[in-house]
Amino acid sequence: MSFNTFGRLFRTTTWGESHGPAIGCVVDGVPPRIPLTEADIQVWLDKRRPGQSRYTTQRKEPDTVEILSGVFEGQTTGAPISLLIANQDVRSKDYSDIKDKFRPGHADYTYHAKYGLRDYRGGGRASARETAARVAAGAIARKILGGAVVIRGAMVQMGAHKIDPENWDWAQADANPFFCPDAAAAAAWAEELDRIRKAGSSVGAMIQVEAAGVPVGLGAPHYAKLDAELAAAMMSIHAAKGVEIGIGMAAAALTGEENADEMRAGNEGAPRFLSNNAGGILGGISTGQDIVVRFAVKPTSSILTPRKTVDTAGNETEIATKGRHDPCVGIRAVPVGEAMLAAVLADHLLLHKAQCG
Amino acid sequence: MSFNTFGRLFRTTTWGESHGPAIGCVVDGVPPRIPLTEADIQVWLDKRRPGQSRYTTQRKEPDTVEILSGVFEGQTTGAPISLLIANQDVRSKDYSDIKDKFRPGHADYTYHAKYGLRDYRGGGRASARETAARVAAGAIARKILGGAVVIRGAMVQMGAHKIDPENWDWAQADANPFFCPDAAAAAAWAEELDRIRKAGSSVGAMIQVEAAGVPVGLGAPHYAKLDAELAAAMMSIHAAKGVEIGIGMAAAALTGEENADEMRAGNEGAPRFLSNNAGGILGGISTGQDIVVRFAVKPTSSILTPRKTVDTAGNETEIATKGRHDPCVGIRAVPVGEAMLAAVLADHLLLHKAQCG
Amino acid sequence: MSFNTFGRLFRTTTWGESHGPAIGCVVDGVPPRIPLTEADIQVWLDKRRPGQSRYTTQRKEPDTVEILSGVFEGQTTGAPISLLIANQDVRSKDYSDIKDKFRPGHADYTYHAKYGLRDYRGGGRASARETAARVAAGAIARKILGGAVVIRGAMVQMGAHKIDPENWDWAQADANPFFCPDAAAAAAWAEELDRIRKAGSSVGAMIQVEAAGVPVGLGAPHYAKLDAELAAAMMSIHAAKGVEIGIGMAAAALTGEENADEMRAGNEGAPRFLSNNAGGILGGISTGQDIVVRFAVKPTSSILTPRKTVDTAGNETEIATKGRHDPCVGIRAVPVGEAMLAAVLADHLLLHKAQCG
Amino acid sequence: MSFNTFGRLFRTTTWGESHGPAIGCVVDGVPPRIPLTEADIQVWLDKRRPGQSRYTTQRKEPDTVEILSGVFEGQTTGAPISLLIANQDVRSKDYSDIKDKFRPGHADYTYHAKYGLRDYRGGGRASARETAARVAAGAIARKILGGAVVIRGAMVQMGAHKIDPENWDWAQADANPFFCPDAAAAAAWAEELDRIRKAGSSVGAMIQVEAAGVPVGLGAPHYAKLDAELAAAMMSIHAAKGVEIGIGMAAAALTGEENADEMRAGNEGAPRFLSNNAGGILGGISTGQDIVVRFAVKPTSSILTPRKTVDTAGNETEIATKGRHDPCVGIRAVPVGEAMLAAVLADHLLLHKAQCG
Repeated sequence: MSFNTFGRLFRTTTWGESHGPAIGCVVDGVPPRIPLTEADIQVWLDKRRPGQSRYTTQRKEPDTVEILSGVFEGQTTGAPISLLIANQDVRSKDYSDIKDKFRPGHADYTYHAKYGLRDYRGGGRASARETAARVAAGAIARKILGGAVVIRGAMVQMGAHKIDPENWDWAQADANPFFCPDAAAAAAWAEELDRIRKAGSSVGAMIQVEAAGVPVGLGAPHYAKLDAELAAAMMSIHAAKGVEIGIGMAAAALTGEENADEMRAGNEGAPRFLSNNAGGILGGISTGQDIVVRFAVKPTSSILTPRKTVDTAGNETEIATKGRHDPCVGIRAVPVGEAMLAAVLADHLLLHKAQCG
Repeated sequence: MSFNTFGRLFRTTTWGESHGPAIGCVVDGVPPRIPLTEADIQVWLDKRRPGQSRYTTQRKEPDTVEILSGVFEGQTTGAPISLLIANQDVRSKDYSDIKDKFRPGHADYTYHAKYGLRDYRGGGRASARETAARVAAGAIARKILGGAVVIRGAMVQMGAHKIDPENWDWAQADANPFFCPDAAAAAAWAEELDRIRKAGSSVGAMIQVEAAGVPVGLGAPHYAKLDAELAAAMMSIHAAKGVEIGIGMAAAALTGEENADEMRAGNEGAPRFLSNNAGGILGGISTGQDIVVRFAVKPTSSILTPRKTVDTAGNETEIATKGRHDPCVGIRAVPVGEAMLAAVLADHLLLHKAQCG
Repeated sequence: MSFNTFGRLFRTTTWGESHGPAIGCVVDGVPPRIPLTEADIQVWLDKRRPGQSRYTTQRKEPDTVEILSGVFEGQTTGAPISLLIANQDVRSKDYSDIKDKFRPGHADYTYHAKYGLRDYRGGGRASARETAARVAAGAIARKILGGAVVIRGAMVQMGAHKIDPENWDWAQADANPFFCPDAAAAAAWAEELDRIRKAGSSVGAMIQVEAAGVPVGLGAPHYAKLDAELAAAMMSIHAAKGVEIGIGMAAAALTGEENADEMRAGNEGAPRFLSNNAGGILGGISTGQDIVVRFAVKPTSSILTPRKTVDTAGNETEIATKGRHDPCVGIRAVPVGEAMLAAVLADHLLLHKAQCG
Repeated sequence: MSFNTFGRLFRTTTWGESHGPAIGCVVDGVPPRIPLTEADIQVWLDKRRPGQSRYTTQRKEPDTVEILSGVFEGQTTGAPISLLIANQDVRSKDYSDIKDKFRPGHADYTYHAKYGLRDYRGGGRASARETAARVAAGAIARKILGGAVVIRGAMVQMGAHKIDPENWDWAQADANPFFCPDAAAAAAWAEELDRIRKAGSSVGAMIQVEAAGVPVGLGAPHYAKLDAELAAAMMSIHAAKGVEIGIGMAAAALTGEENADEMRAGNEGAPRFLSNNAGGILGGISTGQDIVVRFAVKPTSSILTPRKTVDTAGNETEIATKGRHDPCVGIRAVPVGEAMLAAVLADHLLLHKAQCG
């Protein structure tokens, strides 16, 4: 079973390999009569597109999306929307010498062991190139959510270097190649990542994505809790190793008094919360506060420094990966995390309408 | 849509409220001819059962499980297994004064906002009592996995107090009321939790669950990645706020060289890994190493110290919760985390057989 | 994989064997704040209940339903509703001599071959007793649909004897033990079925179920078409061998001119159809006309006349089934068909709200 | 919710409209290391391809399939297989005068009512052109089933004219443009369909599809019964109005003695059945006998004879459809029925391996 579909009512099925002719997805369950053009999707793909700075892979992919179905005269029809993105800058020969070796930290070995073969060109199906399809689907999810829901993301840690939350400025996140909301940190990261990049190394990162304007009531206890679905969505992103909601891992250290987000009377009958340790979710259901999710991504496994490994025949060897890689995949994980957040929320908006609408 | 089923082929549907006549679950997809008795399930329920020490709720529930279907002459038949656990020690009057107020940090408000009514008795459906059904299902999952897969759990942090990993001794985890693998830490925790309990307060915790003996190849990219499914499973547990696999959140701070779990030739053609930052999962597929998952749970929201809140009419008020509560829900989350880990692995064992068996 | 759940948003999971302690189901996805009592469900169970005339099995089961969860102070809460029906009149010894033989036409052989064991007592999981759980779920589905949707069923053929459609009178369907809408046919059937019953034989039947008041727009092309879902729902009923919608099988013989349900202007902008060959469904979506579904059930396989068979050891033998059986299972299939129709419509009502509401 | 995915483990998601740039599907869950080329799929598409005789639509579509993913060096990889078929012979102007009118018997009205808009060009998403994607997926399903399972189909009735079962010859089904296994009937049908075609009329049909070599044990009681899944699969085909298994609707008229497929000792421990009223399925599980399914399709709704209808503004009018249409859609439904049968069996083969393998 290779399960390439996510969502319950707003459902996206992705397909494609890094060095195949194209990648894409089918987005099903979209409500009808939503205005949708390729430009609505392209703007988000452009945010994720590689090769926009020296800090991401130098593979040149325009990532131009084509809508093949489900839209008629500029509106969604309720039918499945098929999206296709051609692969253009494919250099498969770069990979010929890793064809028979497993990169430590990479999916090479597990794909080989599970399936008995693997498309080694550019990581094949395991390539983070798959995330372009997620971003495209996320663009449609944003349309379903409408303008009242604002989804944003930022990189908040690169390697050992965290931002200073005091400096948080969303405008900054669009002003540097790191989606970093702290201008001072961004400057330091630039220097550090140049060093890492030139050394052929890589580094991990922490990403934070948020949604404002989410209505109260989204989520479905117990096994489609909004936080559980978000955890799966973020952990399904390439290289993700941890996910947290609101106060997250730090909740372990709190007392009940500290953790409680106290409530006061707010507008229009809704309470006003005095803090947001919950990250906008209680009992698996949105509270109306901002949804706050963070996830950690590990460093790229394709590095120049030789590492001990084995080959497909079981022999001990070493591997050093050339090719074109992101020195910090966390950067491009920002728009991907945003897309996944949008997709989960759109799905639950439809689900909530079904049961409680 | 209230989604109370989890799993794809090994599927569990739970039902029941804290103060209803019973709780239970239906476990579907179980292979036939597996020996199964109520005692096989009871042993795990007993581990989670409340009232076993002064550190958990004093509600007296024997949690006796009845198998109502799916087993014939001591063997599973392939038909759905219905499990029922009667609620016995119900004191609903304890809750009458929180009937119209929302506990900060609790699902009270969101259930009320989403559904327009709520069963306030003991938390109703949102009660952690639901986890007894998960533990029962997990017992069946263990049977499917067989003896070669060993699943264990431990509490590794209580409030600000972490265990010392150097002291890790699995035998200790069964020897104290905290499932704490560090004897020294357990002694300190006892003192600390007595203090918290007497103060009517509560504290968060971190739980680690592990599976040894998992075959290589379980997991399904991209949206049923083993780590994504585990993240959802753990985050669906009451009070969970964060989940991480292997090195987890700390991966953000690593370089590619540090993160790489190098490989040497191992036995029977499988590689031997020199470290396990991956926590046993690469590309969403098990590597054959130990699966290592940690999750953080927030402190119980039902505390004696008054907190600011609003009532169902929107008026500002305060709330102090009496009733019987766990001062640290993290303790009983240990067997629950184990059960969820077992359930996810059993599901993926069946899925892997289907596609690659 | 034993798949005992049906529905997408309104989801029912059934469990239980004919001679186990109980049968039941969990109904998930029910909207909150719907008034629901056990009496609302019991009325439909009573319609299906065995032993009400000499034309059904003489097993005495009161089929008293208990609501174990999901209802609070007389209203649904949005949480899963667990329903339990105790088995009371179990005579397992009746089955001891068929324990090792396969009844031709029955699931005995296939269960044995698939699972390697079978609960032979009363047919175990394969028993039509399972349908009581469906009827209980159907009662909740009717509540979701509301009073504007009227679901009715009738037996329209027993063995070779069809009703005369000219005589159709819904009042009659409640006035005889056959749910037969043709009083003249009912009288003839009584005589015929007495003969069959006394001979220890059995006979097939055709059932028609209808829904009036269904709003236009329910259904989801292409793989959740309303007719496809109804076909699966009816074919999942024990002994069903064929399903048709509207003109059904007879459509094969028509020309395009004959088949076309012509339209004239109707009330409130909706068209008025001049015929209903479509059975209320076009392109998998409801038209607003009556939904009309028919399904054929084969005769009960448990008969007194000896039939050639083999035993579990592969030896040739004969079998004659005693025990208590329905001479015409089609009778009790009427309320079951109604329940399945209600369940499919309720599910699609929620689905339609989600995407187009 | 527009649900364009079918299957549980072997899952196909189709997309595309009649007059869009392309149609296609994503086939997920395919086991790895199955040899697969475009030619393996093309052979079945060619069987369904329009314009091969004067008895089908004259639209000229080569239906050339491209594999965009999931295959590497001639073998499946376990990743999703994306298939694309370009639309080439699109004449949308043919449809401009039916843009605002509803064809009686067609999905025009219900799509309009449900979605509030419709892609009227060539039927848009409701077009039978969608079935090309099913046939492509069915080709992969056949590869999963392997050579031991043989799937064949035939048209057994055209309008009022049934074949004579005595004349059944599978070789004939490949020798005439009707997939008719009775040479004499085929000759008569040719004459009759010429008449219907020239009159701008259309006619219904009955299709029979069979699978030989199916192992015993496939199917999952109760809601994934093999017959229930086949019923849904066939009823999801455009124009289908009824489905039956084995003796089918005629079961209603039988006695238990007549219906029973008696058993004698067979080879290798499996019984030999003396008849096949069951159509190869008992209790929802395959018996090892041939699976036999029939389904009725209504006549094409697009006919030249004017029919009464209304327009999108609710005004009464008439409609006569020009354009290029199949006078008997039943012909091309034969390879579609085969594909759906293959897909359901492949899915259940994987499911059976998971639970009982």
